[in-house]
Amino acid sequence: MTTEGEGHPIRGVYPNHTGAAANTLLARRLGIDTKEELVAFMRADCNVCRSEGLTSRARVRLTHDGRTAIATLYHLTSGLLAPGEVGLSEATWQALEAEDGATVAIAHPAPVTSLSHVRGKVYGHRLTRTTLPPILRDIVTGRYSDVQLSAFVTACAARPLDHDEIVALTHAMVDVGDRLSWDTQPIADKHCVGGLPGNRTTPIVVSIIAACGLVMPKTSSRAITSPAGTADTMEVLTRVDLSVSEMRRVVEREGGCIVWGGAVQMSPADDIMIRVERALDLDSEGQLIASVLSKKIAAGATHLVLDIPVGPTAKVRNEETARFLERSLLDVAKASGIEARTVWTDGTQPVGRGIGPALEARGVMAVLKNEPDAAPDLRSRSIALAGALLELTGAAAPGQGETMASAVVDDGRAWAKFQRICEAQGGMRVPPVAAYVLPVTAGHAGRVVSIDNRRLAMVAKLAGAPDAKAAGVELHVRLAAEVTKGEPLFTVHAETRGELAYAMEYVMPNVDIIGIAPA
Amino acid sequence: MTTEGEGHPIRGVYPNHTGAAANTLLARRLGIDTKEELVAFMRADCNVCRSEGLTSRARVRLTHDGRTAIATLYHLTSGLLAPGEVGLSEATWQALEAEDGATVAIAHPAPVTSLSHVRGKVYGHRLTRTTLPPILRDIVTGRYSDVQLSAFVTACAARPLDHDEIVALTHAMVDVGDRLSWDTQPIADKHCVGGLPGNRTTPIVVSIIAACGLVMPKTSSRAITSPAGTADTMEVLTRVDLSVSEMRRVVEREGGCIVWGGAVQMSPADDIMIRVERALDLDSEGQLIASVLSKKIAAGATHLVLDIPVGPTAKVRNEETARFLERSLLDVAKASGIEARTVWTDGTQPVGRGIGPALEARGVMAVLKNEPDAAPDLRSRSIALAGALLELTGAAAPGQGETMASAVVDDGRAWAKFQRICEAQGGMRVPPVAAYVLPVTAGHAGRVVSIDNRRLAMVAKLAGAPDAKAAGVELHVRLAAEVTKGEPLFTVHAETRGELAYAMEYVMPNVDIIGIAPA
Repeated sequence: MTTEGEGHPIRGVYPNHTGAAANTLLARRLGIDTKEELVAFMRADCNVCRSEGLTSRARVRLTHDGRTAIATLYHLTSGLLAPGEVGLSEATWQALEAEDGATVAIAHPAPVTSLSHVRGKVYGHRLTRTTLPPILRDIVTGRYSDVQLSAFVTACAARPLDHDEIVALTHAMVDVGDRLSWDTQPIADKHCVGGLPGNRTTPIVVSIIAACGLVMPKTSSRAITSPAGTADTMEVLTRVDLSVSEMRRVVEREGGCIVWGGAVQMSPADDIMIRVERALDLDSEGQLIASVLSKKIAAGATHLVLDIPVGPTAKVRNEETARFLERSLLDVAKASGIEARTVWTDGTQPVGRGIGPALEARGVMAVLKNEPDAAPDLRSRSIALAGALLELTGAAAPGQGETMASAVVDDGRAWAKFQRICEAQGGMRVPPVAAYVLPVTAGHAGRVVSIDNRRLAMVAKLAGAPDAKAAGVELHVRLAAEVTKGEPLFTVHAETRGELAYAMEYVMPNVDIIGIAPA
Repeated sequence: MTTEGEGHPIRGVYPNHTGAAANTLLARRLGIDTKEELVAFMRADCNVCRSEGLTSRARVRLTHDGRTAIATLYHLTSGLLAPGEVGLSEATWQALEAEDGATVAIAHPAPVTSLSHVRGKVYGHRLTRTTLPPILRDIVTGRYSDVQLSAFVTACAARPLDHDEIVALTHAMVDVGDRLSWDTQPIADKHCVGGLPGNRTTPIVVSIIAACGLVMPKTSSRAITSPAGTADTMEVLTRVDLSVSEMRRVVEREGGCIVWGGAVQMSPADDIMIRVERALDLDSEGQLIASVLSKKIAAGATHLVLDIPVGPTAKVRNEETARFLERSLLDVAKASGIEARTVWTDGTQPVGRGIGPALEARGVMAVLKNEPDAAPDLRSRSIALAGALLELTGAAAPGQGETMASAVVDDGRAWAKFQRICEAQGGMRVPPVAAYVLPVTAGHAGRVVSIDNRRLAMVAKLAGAPDAKAAGVELHVRLAAEVTKGEPLFTVHAETRGELAYAMEYVMPNVDIIGIAPA
């Protein structure tokens, strides 16, 4: 159809693609913070865009001094960059360890072939031990765009993973991260299958277990879809972004730690997927289990207690779901060589009085310090979980775990241990206080008959939690409480006027978050 | 848990959120082309980020002079913006119709409540006439981020839509766009259920139908996951981004047009979803049907012929799938008041000799001009489809459609009509020729027994199609052809060295794209 030999300067010659000097530009730090997303900026008229045919929003492979990053390209049509420059976002700058003027080679990334397995899953094919590792490798090396990451996360929720798929996902997630090993055994661990605002037992359980002489190197998440994760809460009290070697020193000295799992890179794929799940407010059971257990395996855990709160507005809404989840968790744990036990807990209302990092941190300290106004439910749940762990590891005789755990809190050893752990992690901090607070009061007298965990969590998030550490909700009532008209039910805390207003816009048409039956 | 009255400058006062002067910044055009994605850049230390607690990658609502846009926020940590400025990407700039120094009000967008329906679909609830319209409205007003769009598209593929869901999606898509009405009837239309490289019958069919005196106001798509859509191909021959009134003038004058549906905004939601489907290389049947029929309804079509190519590497791989898709298409068309007929066609190999915008355009012209080397299959398919449409509308007696269509091509009326349509759309152009071409030859002598449409399309895409108009694949053989060793099987065309190399990297390990059985 075309006329041979016309307009074809090159014919039959395979062009040299690698190392062509024409495909390099000089790095310029633009000071644009795109968070985890890697972004590069190039002039639409630059030699590389023209020679490689790179359009705006294309994915590009950047190489500098042996380091490679896959980034999203945005074209510049203004004079923000000089000819011959490539602008880098902060994350790209760090990934390449670039300096201003550094030479960066730019090329098309190889096609992301693992996406065909994601498409297969969308169409109903099962994921396997063969197809999951390349997907996870591509995810941690930044080769998936947001659209592609979201498709993977959504497909795993819409086509629920079976046992074999969950085991394969768990191990694929472990394999793309670092893995700790310890000279001693047992290594204790705990996890709560989230969904319950304020349920911040971990710092208390770690303090008890370590005070009893066991080893508990705890890594925790930041919030996924909740107003705070344990790492968010602990961060208001001490440093949590420890390196693996720093974490190891803390554990060797104190027997326990409470650090952010993301910093120690033990499950880097999970940290990336969490961001997407958060934007979608979506959790799937398979990814939940793989997320939990991959971190436990990577941390070197041998004994694990799982807290499953059950309640109509908790993540696990009824007994049937709880049994199903329990079965999957224990099966996958067993297939991974971990001794696990579940503890079902009350999921009908929030735990403690605070929702949001700083508010929860104050609640944790009140329990550890045996303060008279400490939340009794936060204390009793922590002791139940620590007790189960003491029994599971053999440190306490069957039936004696809770007694042992209580004693360690009562005599101040748990509080002393917690302070020493915080000191070892980088020094103890005082939680911040919100500048803007507003109480929400009862419209009529009566008895509290329902508390909607989800909508309460939404209020805390709209107020700025977890990014705004002091933001959240302070709960003044519990189920079955008698209230008078005008009595404060909860107080919204925010660090800025705008966020307080944003949260209140949501509260106004949702006054039934706390249900009150006329007396 | 917090001490009342301490550190709380405001208590019990609902802050005034709307119209606060503190939440405005001055617009600055940064000349950053982020394509359809709306992006705003703000200093991390600016008054608005601080007062609203806006973190990087948050979604923000921008308002200027009554126009509103929802954008993704990136923080600036450098001095790229002066204090008090907000940087706008090109798409955001256009959406707000801003000028430099214009006052832009910035706020948190209201929560995207329709996302709960998307989550419901992920978890297996059906979408309905009630839940789909708010989803589609939020999509077209830019309130969904890429992550959220991808979740919607993926959920509709992983949890296939049933008849009622497809009808509801179709109508929701029509309702968020413009809709044409015509004074005359019938209004003819055609559509090919894609997946077959080079199948560019539309310009030929429109020319025949309009030459026969019928009205065919054809809007076409750009490529979704293929190397070219009809709009991409037509764009190398004439202007396709006509407004609705321009399109109407062309149709009134010539009886037909071939324009890009995206420009006339008849199915704006579809254009947004197509970008995501393209990044995922994913098509779902429900979205396919809704995409097709929503455009036909919006275009005012009354009579529609559907081309369904069937073949092992076509989109529709076997008879069972074809029957299922046919049933769904005809059912949804009927429920929408459109008279439709399907034509099953051979999907075992590409149509014509060109794959890619310019190469396909040359093939179309060759058929219309009755050139001796015109591809016979492209001609016969076009005539079959035009014939079916002539019969369906009653313009030809049953069994006489193909004869009427052939005559119009043979005597040059179709070519004359095509030229007049191109002139009316803005003038006819000469297709560009690729600067870099490379033939791929037979490794041994034998007979061509298979041609992999999908991998051949991938080669054309890696070579730059459809964005690079001259790029693509020129096919030299067809099924059952006898070839000698070293004989060219196809030629890769690219506009840049890099893209040619990129395509060849893929071709090398995929030499079996064209299967040759030894003679």
